[in-house]
Amino acid sequence: MHITPGKFRGLSMIADYEGRFTMLAIDQRGSMQKALAQSLGVEKDRVTHEDMAKMKAAITQVLAPYASGVLMDPVYGFSQSVVHVPKFAGILLAQEESGYEQVGTERRSTLVKGWSVAKTRQCGADAAKIVIYYNPDCSEETLRYQHDFVRRMGEECEKHDMAFVFEPVSYPTDGGDADRAEYASAKPGIVRRTVEEFSKPEYKVDLLKLEFPADLKYTNEYAKAVFDEKERTPVYTLADVKEFLRAVDRAATHPWVILSAGVDIREFVEQVKLAVFAGASGFLCGRAIWKKALGLYPDMDAVFSFLRSEGAQNFKNANAEVLSKALPWFDHKKFGGREKIEILGQGESWYKQI
Amino acid sequence: MHITPGKFRGLSMIADYEGRFTMLAIDQRGSMQKALAQSLGVEKDRVTHEDMAKMKAAITQVLAPYASGVLMDPVYGFSQSVVHVPKFAGILLAQEESGYEQVGTERRSTLVKGWSVAKTRQCGADAAKIVIYYNPDCSEETLRYQHDFVRRMGEECEKHDMAFVFEPVSYPTDGGDADRAEYASAKPGIVRRTVEEFSKPEYKVDLLKLEFPADLKYTNEYAKAVFDEKERTPVYTLADVKEFLRAVDRAATHPWVILSAGVDIREFVEQVKLAVFAGASGFLCGRAIWKKALGLYPDMDAVFSFLRSEGAQNFKNANAEVLSKALPWFDHKKFGGREKIEILGQGESWYKQI
Repeated sequence: MHITPGKFRGLSMIADYEGRFTMLAIDQRGSMQKALAQSLGVEKDRVTHEDMAKMKAAITQVLAPYASGVLMDPVYGFSQSVVHVPKFAGILLAQEESGYEQVGTERRSTLVKGWSVAKTRQCGADAAKIVIYYNPDCSEETLRYQHDFVRRMGEECEKHDMAFVFEPVSYPTDGGDADRAEYASAKPGIVRRTVEEFSKPEYKVDLLKLEFPADLKYTNEYAKAVFDEKERTPVYTLADVKEFLRAVDRAATHPWVILSAGVDIREFVEQVKLAVFAGASGFLCGRAIWKKALGLYPDMDAVFSFLRSEGAQNFKNANAEVLSKALPWFDHKKFGGREKIEILGQGESWYKQI
Repeated sequence: MHITPGKFRGLSMIADYEGRFTMLAIDQRGSMQKALAQSLGVEKDRVTHEDMAKMKAAITQVLAPYASGVLMDPVYGFSQSVVHVPKFAGILLAQEESGYEQVGTERRSTLVKGWSVAKTRQCGADAAKIVIYYNPDCSEETLRYQHDFVRRMGEECEKHDMAFVFEPVSYPTDGGDADRAEYASAKPGIVRRTVEEFSKPEYKVDLLKLEFPADLKYTNEYAKAVFDEKERTPVYTLADVKEFLRAVDRAATHPWVILSAGVDIREFVEQVKLAVFAGASGFLCGRAIWKKALGLYPDMDAVFSFLRSEGAQNFKNANAEVLSKALPWFDHKKFGGREKIEILGQGESWYKQI
């Protein structure tokens, strides 16, 4: 299988030495602002740039050494946190504006104004990432908008030979809560159909960052308040969930990793275990590992103390499910093994032609 | 001290975890072609692209794991060797055409046609390097030409926020041999004055790759055929050489590393020891480590066997003089310590302004 050098080096940099992903996400903006506002007892818009930058730098400093790659944002994170990223951790930079534009009950994405893939390259980062809110049952207009958004990013990344990490996150199109039996039932189909869409070559994705394609809290095995205080009516079994994961893996024409979406660390570790068993190449995880630190702000001693103990332990617990177990990215069916990888156009006139 | 993120990340990537450089050079073109022609018993122009690429890939595969960074060329090396570079080794790419344009007895530099710093970025490399032949006693015309050449590269690197590694190599302007008492005597002054010139901010250099500023084979201590079969008349002592090195270190406004220029490994290890003692941040070394492998081509079993045993041992011997001894780049007087490093313009509007 052929791959361009920028994408090859990018994927290698954000993976571990054996091609597996244990990545730290610290690109949260809206959700972090909200949590810090709560800790500070102020309105969300009173949380300053410095509050955000300080928190992100602290998390990066303590936890980046456990990561194969670190996903940062260019607004609050990168410029003040990059000095804390060890050389053995690759750098991913978020391209999308936090949140979404609401059109009725549907969600559309925009890019960070003033930022670009060209700047991402210039900074020495290894990969570009976008997240979009997505539901294949949205209106045709919204679907077309979101598809174009992803396609344009794929083209930008191709132009700069930058590894493209793409993250679709589902939501109920009726504007209701996601924590409902009805939505839990629909989720496996939504995630699988989403993966089918963005596996098309026209999007030029290199790595999929996927939601867990079910809600474990709605399984027979975990419905009785195992991960939180709430008891739910189960809609499927763990065996069903394993089948949902296999369906996602069959649909994915690119290597994929699992995201945490802020669930509790115990639930996340269970998700990682199941996803890796089904063929995932690791995880890209933020809040499940460090969210408790936000509640301790602005007491930085307490923040560092949490990160160094519980935070680090959370990371190690998730890593344990990936190391020597997850599928190395170059062993994905897309590539077929490390020894089969060749740089596109390699040879005599390569340097003139790229 | 302020530094831009691309240059910060670039220097971090090509240094080891502690900011010291143990870099492998495998960007040789003319000299490698010549050596392979000899091994194959053919004219130099009969050495094929495949011969060169195969040799470079083998050296990279075996020795890159010992390096903090690997210097490759885009013509024969990079596209076929990059798959062998581990993520923990940064990548430097040569920009200059091999050899030089001869004008009388003077030498002028050109760039690889069809290659650029933009392409260097696009490939995911961490630093750009040029070597020039330089003697401060050249004609004003040649000096102006070479100064412009370096200045333009400094500007290109600044534009792409790419770490700029600059290597001046001296030569006798009379067209004679360098292995003469007269030239050995002149060398310390030539190297020091060269460092003074390219320490000027207008060249925008980030890391100097320097010749040893003396010829150890012309010292009292080593003149009696210690490093080769030839006995020479000494022109200085080891104590003088230490003073030459200190003068270079005083003149250098950027961190610097020592190059091997193909000397024997025993002489090189001695040079590294002395340079590090005077303030160097490590080495960037090619032939001193692996040149014997060229003589074994095309017997690839013998090539690999040499690289894995003697080649690896040579690298480890040089590394031993750098690890925990050389000056980390951020501790150079230019930066004044890791904790003083700040990303230029970091903060609220950084991402819009770069």
